[in-house]
Amino acid sequence: MATARTTRHRVLVVGAGFGGLAVARSLRRTEVDVTLVDQHNFHTFQPLLYQVATAGLSAEDVAHQIRGIVRVHGNVRFRMGRVSDFDLDRRRVLLDDGEALSYDSLVLAAGAVYGDYGIPGVLEHAFMLKSLHEAVDLRSHIIRQFEAAALDERASDEGRLTFAIAGAGPTGVEMAGALVELFAVVRKDYPELAGTRPRVVLIEPTGAVLPPYTPATRAYAERTLRRRGVEVRLETAVRRVAPEWIELGDGEVLSTRTLIWAAGVRAHPLTERLGVPLGPGGRVPVSAHLHLPDRPEVFVIGDAAGVLGDDGRPHPQVAQVAIQMGKHVGRTILERLRGSTSAPFRYRDRGQMAIIGRSAGVAELSRQLGGGRFGGFLGWLAWLFVHLIYLPGHQNRVNAMATWIYNFFTYDRHARLVLDRREQAAEAVRTATAPRPGAAGDGVGGDGTEVREPVFR
Amino acid sequence: MATARTTRHRVLVVGAGFGGLAVARSLRRTEVDVTLVDQHNFHTFQPLLYQVATAGLSAEDVAHQIRGIVRVHGNVRFRMGRVSDFDLDRRRVLLDDGEALSYDSLVLAAGAVYGDYGIPGVLEHAFMLKSLHEAVDLRSHIIRQFEAAALDERASDEGRLTFAIAGAGPTGVEMAGALVELFAVVRKDYPELAGTRPRVVLIEPTGAVLPPYTPATRAYAERTLRRRGVEVRLETAVRRVAPEWIELGDGEVLSTRTLIWAAGVRAHPLTERLGVPLGPGGRVPVSAHLHLPDRPEVFVIGDAAGVLGDDGRPHPQVAQVAIQMGKHVGRTILERLRGSTSAPFRYRDRGQMAIIGRSAGVAELSRQLGGGRFGGFLGWLAWLFVHLIYLPGHQNRVNAMATWIYNFFTYDRHARLVLDRREQAAEAVRTATAPRPGAAGDGVGGDGTEVREPVFR
Repeated sequence: MATARTTRHRVLVVGAGFGGLAVARSLRRTEVDVTLVDQHNFHTFQPLLYQVATAGLSAEDVAHQIRGIVRVHGNVRFRMGRVSDFDLDRRRVLLDDGEALSYDSLVLAAGAVYGDYGIPGVLEHAFMLKSLHEAVDLRSHIIRQFEAAALDERASDEGRLTFAIAGAGPTGVEMAGALVELFAVVRKDYPELAGTRPRVVLIEPTGAVLPPYTPATRAYAERTLRRRGVEVRLETAVRRVAPEWIELGDGEVLSTRTLIWAAGVRAHPLTERLGVPLGPGGRVPVSAHLHLPDRPEVFVIGDAAGVLGDDGRPHPQVAQVAIQMGKHVGRTILERLRGSTSAPFRYRDRGQMAIIGRSAGVAELSRQLGGGRFGGFLGWLAWLFVHLIYLPGHQNRVNAMATWIYNFFTYDRHARLVLDRREQAAEAVRTATAPRPGAAGDGVGGDGTEVREPVFR
Repeated sequence: MATARTTRHRVLVVGAGFGGLAVARSLRRTEVDVTLVDQHNFHTFQPLLYQVATAGLSAEDVAHQIRGIVRVHGNVRFRMGRVSDFDLDRRRVLLDDGEALSYDSLVLAAGAVYGDYGIPGVLEHAFMLKSLHEAVDLRSHIIRQFEAAALDERASDEGRLTFAIAGAGPTGVEMAGALVELFAVVRKDYPELAGTRPRVVLIEPTGAVLPPYTPATRAYAERTLRRRGVEVRLETAVRRVAPEWIELGDGEVLSTRTLIWAAGVRAHPLTERLGVPLGPGGRVPVSAHLHLPDRPEVFVIGDAAGVLGDDGRPHPQVAQVAIQMGKHVGRTILERLRGSTSAPFRYRDRGQMAIIGRSAGVAELSRQLGGGRFGGFLGWLAWLFVHLIYLPGHQNRVNAMATWIYNFFTYDRHARLVLDRREQAAEAVRTATAPRPGAAGDGVGGDGTEVREPVFR
C-alpha cells in the first residue's frame, strides 16, 4: 500500500488525534499522498471523555471512525496499526505487525499520556482519561462501587463512596462537577444507601483550581465547586496510591478506591524512539518550523512537540495548539514542494474554556481576541456550542445535542452501565484486606497493596 | 439484605430480561418484597442487538440500567450478581460471590443461549448475538475484516469479505439485511477494495426463510433479500466450523472468517441446576401455572419454560411469551397470598414481525387479532414503532429514533468502531495458515483449526 513506489510525495501521519487529522485535512485534494496511521479505527474526541466516564454520553458518541473522516479527501488513506519504532535514516516507520511504511515527510502526532511524576501506585491504581476504553472502565468502576456499597453496611468507612481526583485543571474540574451531578441521579438508584453521601474530593497541589485562568475565574470555579458539594483540597499533593487508599502530602490517609488522575501529562512514549534528547515532559525539541533540527522531513506536532511560544514558555497541551500545528505542517510541506519557504509556526491563542457543571462554565478569550471573560450560564452555553462544532460526525453531534438537552431538562444520566467486561460479581463482594499505613507513613513496602488489574491496555 | 428476616413474602426473580422485568412490574407497589438478580446492571434489549452489531445503534442505546427501571416500584430491589446454584429444599439461591439469597417464591427467568446442536466448531468460532458484548465484538470483528482485506490483495480469496449466517429465522434475516446495508456504507470507506464485493450468505436447513411465517411472507422475504444481494442458501446445513471456513452439508467448503450463528436457541444452562429432568431444548417442564410440578413456589418463565400451548406445541421463545408469563406469575403469587386460585397460563398470540431492511418489514397478526398481514414500508414502520415502544428508557428511545431518522435519510451507519479490546493490530495482518479440509471432508481432526479466543464471556 503505502510502500508501493510512487512519484508523488508521501506524507505519513502517525496519530489521528486533533493534530493528525488537521494535517490530513490541510493536505486534502493536493498533489501529495497522505497515509494516516492509528492503532484505533476511530478518532477519540478527548474533551468529552469525562462525559462518557460520568454516564452522560455513550462511548460511540465521542468517537468517529477515521475512514469516514478522510474518505472525502481522496488522496488520504488510513492504515490501522500500532507504530513500534522509527528508522529515520531509511525514512521508514515500523509497525508492530511487522510492516514498514516509507515516507518522504513524517508527522508524529502521537499526543500525550498521563504522567505519574514518579508517585508510587499511580500507574497501577489510578484511573486516567485518555482513551474511550479508560472512560468506559472508569464509569463501570464507579457504578460498581455503588453496587458493592449497597451490599455492605460498612461501605462508607471503606471509602467505596469517596471519589478522589488529583489535579484541578480543566479535566479535574470538569470531572468533579460531572461526578456530583451523576451522584444526584445514582443516589436515587440506591435506596440501600439512603443514609450515606458520596464524597468528591478534588486535590490540587497549587493554591487554586484552574491554575492557568485569571484570579476571578479561579475564584468563581472554586466557589461553584464547593457550593455543589465538591471538597476542594488546595496546596495538597498525592504522595502514594494504593487500591483502597491514597496518602496525601501532609500524611493524611484518605480511604478511596477511586483516584482519577488528572494531574498533568507527558508526551507519548513513542517520542523516545526518535533517538533525540527529549525536553521537559518528554516533549521533542523541534525547530520553529516544527521539525527535528537536523531532519527537516520529520515533524512533531501537538502535545508531543516542545517548542516555545512568543512568551518564551512551551505551548499548552491542548487541542487548539495541535490543530494549528497540524495545519501549519500541512502548509509547510506543500510550500516546500513548490520551492517556497514557509513562515515559522506561531500559535494564535483564542482563549480557554472549561465547564464546571450544569449552567456553569468559564470562558476566557485571549488578549489577541480582546481578553473578554464570561462565566455562569453564558460560559456553559459557549462551551457546549464550541464542543458541538468541533465534535466530528453529524450523527455524533445530533446524539450529543439531543442527550444534552434531554439531560438538562430531566437531570438524567442514561448510560449508567457496567460494561468493562470484568467478572461481574467478583469485585462486588471482595472485602478490603490491605492494611492501612501507619499515620507516620514510613513510605516503604509493607503497605499490603493488592494489585488491581492495570487500567492500561 | 434479602436474607434479613421479614414478615413480607419474598419473591426472588433471577434474570432481568423481558420476563424478569415483567414479574417485577406486575408486583410493583404490592405487599411483597421483590429482589431482582442479574449478572449485569442493565437490561439488554435483545431484539435490537443486531443493529449494534451492524453499527446502526450505539451499545448504550439498547441497554437500560435496571435500577433506573425498578426504582419507581418501591418494593423492588436489585442485586447485581451471578447465580451459580439453587438449594430448593432450603429455598435459597446461591450466588457465585458466596452469598445465598432466601425466597418464599422463586421465578427463574434466565432466558436462552444459542444451541450448537453438536456441530463441531460452533461454540469456538461462531459469533452469537445474545449479549451486548457479543454485539460489540461482532461489529468490531466485521470492521477488522475490512481493515485486513484492505492490506491484502488476496483478501477475497481468503473469505475475509464473506459473511455467513446460519439460520434464516427473524434474527438471521434481520442480520443479513442489515449487513448488506452496512456494507454499502463501508465499501465507500475502503477505496483499496474497489474491485471486490462483500458477500452475505444466509444458510438455512429448511426450504424457506422465516419458516414460521405464511408462504406469502416467506416468498416476499426471500425475494427481497436476494434482490438486495444476499445469497440465500436453502436446504443447506452447516456441518463444521473452523476459524477460516465452514463446511456445508453437501461437502462444499465456504471460505469465511465470520459465521453468525442464528440457528436456534436452548434454555440457559442454569436450568440444569434445578435438579429436574429437562425437556427438548433444555426447557424446564412446568405446570400450566408455570411452576415445577412438585414445587409450587418455584416458577420458570420465558425461553427456559417448557409448557405446551393450546396447539399442543411449545411456545415460541420470543419476548411476548416471556412478558405474558411474567405478568401471569406476578398475578399468581398475589392471588395465592390472598387465598384465591389463579387461572392457568394461556398465551395470547398477537402475531410476529421481522425486519428485512430499509423500508422492508413483515408483520403478521395472529388469528385472534384478525390474521392480517402486511409487508414492505408499512411492515417496516410497524416494526420500528413497536420496537420503540418496548425499548426501555426515554433517552434510549430518543437516541434510537433520532438515529433511525438520520440513517434513513443519509444511509449512514455511524458506529463503525472497533471497540472489542483485542490487541488492535494483531489479527489485522495474521495470515491464514489453517489447511482447508479435503473435498471429501473426512470429519476428523487434522483440520488445523486455530483456536480463536472464545466469543463467550
